[in-house]
Amino acid sequence: MRPCIVLQTDFGTGWGAVASMKGVCKQVDPALECVDLTHEIPQYDILAASRELVYVLPFWPAGTVFVSVVDPGVGTDRRACVALLENGCYVVTPDNGTLTHAARQIGVKAVRQIDERTNRYPGTEDVAVFHGRDLFAYTAARLAAGVIGFDGVGPAYDPAEIVLFDRALVCAETAEGSAAGVVSSVSDPFGSVAFNVLSADFRAAGFRHGDRVRTTLTRAGETYYDGTVLYERSFGFVPLGAPILFDSSTNYIELGLNQGSFRDKYAVQPGDAFTLTRA
Amino acid sequence: MRPCIVLQTDFGTGWGAVASMKGVCKQVDPALECVDLTHEIPQYDILAASRELVYVLPFWPAGTVFVSVVDPGVGTDRRACVALLENGCYVVTPDNGTLTHAARQIGVKAVRQIDERTNRYPGTEDVAVFHGRDLFAYTAARLAAGVIGFDGVGPAYDPAEIVLFDRALVCAETAEGSAAGVVSSVSDPFGSVAFNVLSADFRAAGFRHGDRVRTTLTRAGETYYDGTVLYERSFGFVPLGAPILFDSSTNYIELGLNQGSFRDKYAVQPGDAFTLTRA
Amino acid sequence: MRPCIVLQTDFGTGWGAVASMKGVCKQVDPALECVDLTHEIPQYDILAASRELVYVLPFWPAGTVFVSVVDPGVGTDRRACVALLENGCYVVTPDNGTLTHAARQIGVKAVRQIDERTNRYPGTEDVAVFHGRDLFAYTAARLAAGVIGFDGVGPAYDPAEIVLFDRALVCAETAEGSAAGVVSSVSDPFGSVAFNVLSADFRAAGFRHGDRVRTTLTRAGETYYDGTVLYERSFGFVPLGAPILFDSSTNYIELGLNQGSFRDKYAVQPGDAFTLTRA
Repeated sequence: MRPCIVLQTDFGTGWGAVASMKGVCKQVDPALECVDLTHEIPQYDILAASRELVYVLPFWPAGTVFVSVVDPGVGTDRRACVALLENGCYVVTPDNGTLTHAARQIGVKAVRQIDERTNRYPGTEDVAVFHGRDLFAYTAARLAAGVIGFDGVGPAYDPAEIVLFDRALVCAETAEGSAAGVVSSVSDPFGSVAFNVLSADFRAAGFRHGDRVRTTLTRAGETYYDGTVLYERSFGFVPLGAPILFDSSTNYIELGLNQGSFRDKYAVQPGDAFTLTRA
Repeated sequence: MRPCIVLQTDFGTGWGAVASMKGVCKQVDPALECVDLTHEIPQYDILAASRELVYVLPFWPAGTVFVSVVDPGVGTDRRACVALLENGCYVVTPDNGTLTHAARQIGVKAVRQIDERTNRYPGTEDVAVFHGRDLFAYTAARLAAGVIGFDGVGPAYDPAEIVLFDRALVCAETAEGSAAGVVSSVSDPFGSVAFNVLSADFRAAGFRHGDRVRTTLTRAGETYYDGTVLYERSFGFVPLGAPILFDSSTNYIELGLNQGSFRDKYAVQPGDAFTLTRA
Repeated sequence: MRPCIVLQTDFGTGWGAVASMKGVCKQVDPALECVDLTHEIPQYDILAASRELVYVLPFWPAGTVFVSVVDPGVGTDRRACVALLENGCYVVTPDNGTLTHAARQIGVKAVRQIDERTNRYPGTEDVAVFHGRDLFAYTAARLAAGVIGFDGVGPAYDPAEIVLFDRALVCAETAEGSAAGVVSSVSDPFGSVAFNVLSADFRAAGFRHGDRVRTTLTRAGETYYDGTVLYERSFGFVPLGAPILFDSSTNYIELGLNQGSFRDKYAVQPGDAFTLTRA
């Protein structure tokens, strides 16, 4: 059984781009199965791509080949690479920050630059704008199908050279009974607001279910939300419409309203600062 | 050949939730194939989930394992269940009304409550908000892969205890030459308006293709549409822009405009009352 | 290994229509795999369906069975057909213009009208509005599964009878150092504007990367854009926000802004006229 290819892009599904990537995979080996992670990453939002990737990665078998293409630098000289993670999964991606969360939370065992001379889909030399199809999907398919091994990707380089976002963007400061960081995402479809603090780090800072937590949200120095919120396992612990801090399925702490949208009610934006202090 | 797992949620496809459900299935058995029904059920709209499920179910082979997760009560004590339908398909879902249409139109042969001690994805005990992945997808995969049989789901309970919506919501009143009920959906992408009367019941009430039918739409006691409309097989029987009553592919009667949107033209909303009387 | 079925419609993915098509395929043969091209073709936009199809087709293996259902004439007497293309792929579609681009760029080897008496999904005789499921998906599945050969589709007819859009809509006029045609699409998610001139034809007219090209856009006789634009391989050759003409992955020439939306900035619409003249 071939490992799956799991695809993530900012292309949308309204046109043929993703289907042409899948066709390239099927040309390499009709037995390959492609599964969508999402194609609705906000355009050029590499940080969001990094975050979604690490959310999904732990739930797939070792050997799975992920392809993530959010690539504002396509056609310039940013590196195209394949990373082998510590959990045995591969990520085929431009090396532009997409690996930030995976590098921190899972770890990169080895990384190789894709050699375009051997791993470019033949006949597309005149197209410079679609590495997603011509380079990344093609290389992923060759790897998943066993046409090449990991060393057939191209030359290895030092994982320490991988492009990463600043730590402050992806990891809140925590101390006993407090955490401070930034809103990492407001794209949850139910309107919950994601903080850049992992549940594990939050608990390591001493927070426990049942705690009441003073919660502030600040933009440009102005605090626009200041409330005491219950930290619990799920929405059902508070009345309809009431706020709650909970362990999201993404492994991060989120702030939501029971059957309401915290994001919409308070117009929260990514990058806003938060503080959480045990009351 | 394993049966397919067909997934329906209100999660949207803009993030990794659905892909993590599919990864869990692949962890159980890489040979399992997951197919999307839709992930755009309006949030918390259990009735819509029930309706879409029964629309698609009859077109899949016996043994198919459907997963439907529209679950405003996640983390509270609503039952998580697997229903075995009379047509041999399984539905893995919170028992919160999602089975209403399937119970009425197909019938439930047996139902079992999911035993979380055996059928929860290991390592997710700290996450209470994503039964879709940790309980429903995992149980569906185990069932589809043959890791457990139906009796391995958990304890059986009486199908008569299944949570159902009121009959009036899902089934119009019919009599010879007339039908009266509610608009069940206006989400058809072409703008047709779905009534909660099955084509079969409509014909049993004596309506025939070629009939002219007095059609009213009423909200809060105010009739905002009153017209005589042709009942026919398809749009092509009336001029462009003219109204038509037709047998939808969903097996319900719908009211549309030929290449136009009845919904948009008359601002129809779900729950509006309709009457149909043979002219 | 069965060939894939690749599905394109204007149904959207918000309801069960596409999933019921896939179920019908699985009923024919559980080993069949269905892959989505897109289901977001603008409603009734047959020309867009034709264009997306030819974009994706060349990247799939010979034998792949494409299904394209943008079918405003469903239930009337337009032909339902299967075309065998010169590259060995099949297209199952209403014969309403959807084959225009494929006929010109790939070529149709043979075409057959679907015989509804043998190739209609049993039990759907009362539904006239969903040939996508009841006729096209079912026929495609039978063909892909080998239940029928191409001659089992129905009677052959002359490919010269295939319904095509006017040449001027799909193919710009070119001469040495110039091209003139229409905007064929503005639906690129990044906001680039597609012209109806193939890269190959553009180069045959003498244009080369590095050329500066006088570019005009005109609507109803009014020129609303007149600029000199670099023709290059990709966005990175111009500053952020600057315009660029480039070879799109679709094989057509497109006009974009580096990390911006040309479409939104100039409110470009499909059908607007363009001229390109080497400066």
